[in-house]
Amino acid sequence: MNGDYQLTIDKMLESGVSSNPNQIINYSGKKTFTYKEFRERVYRLAKALISIGVKKGDTVAVIDWDTYVYLEAYFAVPMIGAVLHTVNVRYPQDLIYYTMDHAEDKYVIVRDEFVPILSKNKEAFYFIKGWIIYSEYGNVPDELSPKYIYDELMSKNYDIELPEISENDLATTFYTSGTTGIPKGVQFTHRQIVLHAISSGLALSDRPISLTADDVIMPLVPMFHVHAWGVPYMTIMSGRQYVLPGRYDFDHIIDLIAQENITVIAMVPSILYMIVTNPNVGKIAGRKIRAIIGGGALPEGLQKAAEKLGIMAISGYGLSETAPILTLATYNSDVKKLPLEEQKKYHLKTGIPIPLVQLRVIDDKWNDVPRDEKTIGEIVVRAPWLTSVYVKNKEGTEALWKGGWMHTGDLAVMDKFGYIKIVDREKDAVKSGGEFIPSLILEDAISACPGVVENAVVGKPHEKWGERPVAFYTGTAKPEEIRKCLEDIVRQGRIAKFWIPDDFINVKEFVKTSTGKIDKKVLREMLKK
Amino acid sequence: MNGDYQLTIDKMLESGVSSNPNQIINYSGKKTFTYKEFRERVYRLAKALISIGVKKGDTVAVIDWDTYVYLEAYFAVPMIGAVLHTVNVRYPQDLIYYTMDHAEDKYVIVRDEFVPILSKNKEAFYFIKGWIIYSEYGNVPDELSPKYIYDELMSKNYDIELPEISENDLATTFYTSGTTGIPKGVQFTHRQIVLHAISSGLALSDRPISLTADDVIMPLVPMFHVHAWGVPYMTIMSGRQYVLPGRYDFDHIIDLIAQENITVIAMVPSILYMIVTNPNVGKIAGRKIRAIIGGGALPEGLQKAAEKLGIMAISGYGLSETAPILTLATYNSDVKKLPLEEQKKYHLKTGIPIPLVQLRVIDDKWNDVPRDEKTIGEIVVRAPWLTSVYVKNKEGTEALWKGGWMHTGDLAVMDKFGYIKIVDREKDAVKSGGEFIPSLILEDAISACPGVVENAVVGKPHEKWGERPVAFYTGTAKPEEIRKCLEDIVRQGRIAKFWIPDDFINVKEFVKTSTGKIDKKVLREMLKK
Repeated sequence: MNGDYQLTIDKMLESGVSSNPNQIINYSGKKTFTYKEFRERVYRLAKALISIGVKKGDTVAVIDWDTYVYLEAYFAVPMIGAVLHTVNVRYPQDLIYYTMDHAEDKYVIVRDEFVPILSKNKEAFYFIKGWIIYSEYGNVPDELSPKYIYDELMSKNYDIELPEISENDLATTFYTSGTTGIPKGVQFTHRQIVLHAISSGLALSDRPISLTADDVIMPLVPMFHVHAWGVPYMTIMSGRQYVLPGRYDFDHIIDLIAQENITVIAMVPSILYMIVTNPNVGKIAGRKIRAIIGGGALPEGLQKAAEKLGIMAISGYGLSETAPILTLATYNSDVKKLPLEEQKKYHLKTGIPIPLVQLRVIDDKWNDVPRDEKTIGEIVVRAPWLTSVYVKNKEGTEALWKGGWMHTGDLAVMDKFGYIKIVDREKDAVKSGGEFIPSLILEDAISACPGVVENAVVGKPHEKWGERPVAFYTGTAKPEEIRKCLEDIVRQGRIAKFWIPDDFINVKEFVKTSTGKIDKKVLREMLKK
Repeated sequence: MNGDYQLTIDKMLESGVSSNPNQIINYSGKKTFTYKEFRERVYRLAKALISIGVKKGDTVAVIDWDTYVYLEAYFAVPMIGAVLHTVNVRYPQDLIYYTMDHAEDKYVIVRDEFVPILSKNKEAFYFIKGWIIYSEYGNVPDELSPKYIYDELMSKNYDIELPEISENDLATTFYTSGTTGIPKGVQFTHRQIVLHAISSGLALSDRPISLTADDVIMPLVPMFHVHAWGVPYMTIMSGRQYVLPGRYDFDHIIDLIAQENITVIAMVPSILYMIVTNPNVGKIAGRKIRAIIGGGALPEGLQKAAEKLGIMAISGYGLSETAPILTLATYNSDVKKLPLEEQKKYHLKTGIPIPLVQLRVIDDKWNDVPRDEKTIGEIVVRAPWLTSVYVKNKEGTEALWKGGWMHTGDLAVMDKFGYIKIVDREKDAVKSGGEFIPSLILEDAISACPGVVENAVVGKPHEKWGERPVAFYTGTAKPEEIRKCLEDIVRQGRIAKFWIPDDFINVKEFVKTSTGKIDKKVLREMLKK
């Protein structure tokens, strides 16, 4: 048809380059690329992938920090009709393997320093047809094969055409951190990612975030995490100045903010906490930085500590299942009339829906709760960028989409101006530093330790991390014995080190619910005392 | 499918209401509606239309000034799967009839004062099944039947469900002003209108337009004209404060700007000219208004006159065929580094593509012209919001979409920063000795000469050179004075010597087209005598 136009990821790249050909992408203060140069590299990578055998529909995993290589893959992999799997490098080794197997990864772009994690278990990766190894400092490890070297692939010229793709082709897949159990796969099409980028870009242009072409943007959200909240895509599409942080080193990040004049940062509360409490934070004081905060509630104390340094923190909200942005705490027509001090309180709210998001807070009879800031309901949503399934998980998918709306599992109230505020999560998840700790897997690990009969993990509020896990257990084991046991399990790659609970509390017996499960509400109450 | 989400016009209304329920829509200083109230009225109108027999696929015409009734129809008509035909009220009676017949209108929402134009010829309108008459002052004329009264329909309650619609359903149709011949019909789907709204909204957030939730927006682009450039849709979707001007009365418009604190206005250059030269313009001086200028090149003299009043004028570009916005003269990474005075010169350029627009300037072998600001080519585009056809016009459609790109018929140059500048329209071009003479640049030069008010250059057939330019002008200058002035400009290197018109013809006033442009057809006719 005349003017048939597919909403595919390449269109965002082309928009950025045609409107801002000389704009800069900066990798951690070490390398810069103009948009024109970046485009050239993306097409080269796309063709290189085809040259080594990547086919339309293949899944290509990336295991890396937040580098320009990752950003190149964000575009090049979907542009050839392959599916980008952004592997969570904070998972324990077992879960990394599980997700790569479950996603049916065929090729892997991997930074050299992650090779040891993979090569320990290399026979298990029989399904990988090619490892494309990127080495920033030039020492390409030899353990994995068939092996390709990223820089070699990128030094060649290719006479290859990219395949035609449709906006409904899958573009990305990744795994939610598994709020309670085994990680669940979500997936997004080109169309979903483009619509999310354009709508969230529009919403972020509103006060007090007020994103414009003058801004220098650095997402401090790991790129394996829900497309770094879509910030890379929206930034490139609008042709804005972009800084990639590399591996998170907070002394270096503070220097980067200062040197590159970064004005907008997206991050979880615990990252903001680490910036605010860094001994060198004085270097960036008074710069009028705006911080978009998601992945957990923004505490008022942290907002104020940031404000003293000239960092204005504003909340947003979304899930892995939602690509992710659903709401932002921007000012609507009611809030913009309030005095400044009142407006700041709204920065702490979960926000108002961004364009095209339909959001309801409902009771268990599907009635919208009154806008009284008191009545609690579940947030359910519709939007053009929600995962249509949990991959290969029919039961999970049905629960997620019950009644034709996506169920977030988050409980919220709504105020008279239409702002929502999350008050609790329906599920029993513990979220530490923006990462979910899957309590079922952790409890399973604890139960394997000698002298533990029953156990349950709950989250305890924590100033820096938002929440930290605490384990309750019955049995004769001593806390230090369980801790040691878990450290062994960490070494086996079954759980991550940061999952180890801060406290182990021995109880005589557990209060159970009517269905015989341990009642975690009671345990949480105990922690408050 | 789970999460199947159609990009339909109702989603924009719902977004505006859920994020800004108490935001205000102001009709010409006479009436205000909150977004919540407006939403209620839109659904009422939608159901009223179904109640009188409007079916999915029917075309519903609107004949009105820029009123809240029009705005209600912008949403309600497409929301029931009907097609909104925005009738050009500045057409002569014959062309109004021609377009309504050609569009196969079935129902008409018409303001009382336009009834006489229609009823003169009422037998010819045998195909109209219902006239819905709106009377602002309560005198509903009786000449047309079957007749419905808008306010009566809007006073009832309806127990009617809206039909399900798809994003690819047609939403709107209207006719291009037809500078060369009979008007041509264009048409747009829901998806196209939603994508245009969100992308143009995002682009307008960039400097120096910097649209935010603090702005009060008034489109001074007739609502029959390419959806008033999409401003109503993008404004409602983002929940912004919106002022409808009603019939254009410049004394009243100046009062409206002052009373309602309007900060952003979209308009053609001649409307800006009328504001700037209005005797009461002092009432709005110094208010820091941003004017988005399209539908014709922004002359430097007008930019400067506006600037003295605190009105910053910035160019945009699009066609009826393109829904319309393709480019805006916002600052990219190169321009934002320039000194302020240099940046202002960029406001006069045609601009850079807004997100998702692919734009090329090509020679007749489909090569992109060099970015040298000299080589002239035709602008061809792809975007998610281009009309797929000229309605019932196969030949016109084929020419429009030759080679899979939409041909704008506009001739432009591109500079090293990626900005295009239209130098002429292919249709109006003057070609002398095999070289194009860009009439817009020449007219701009002539406009800088003392004693010239308005001017237009057309080609006069010439035995030796094919065509030679002839300038028509209003004002007190003598032909020899203009010639001397242009010779000075030649010496400055701004125009070529052979561009100087052979003749300068002083006229009392110009005949204008319905969109306020000088009608060059009339001038060419004068040359034939």
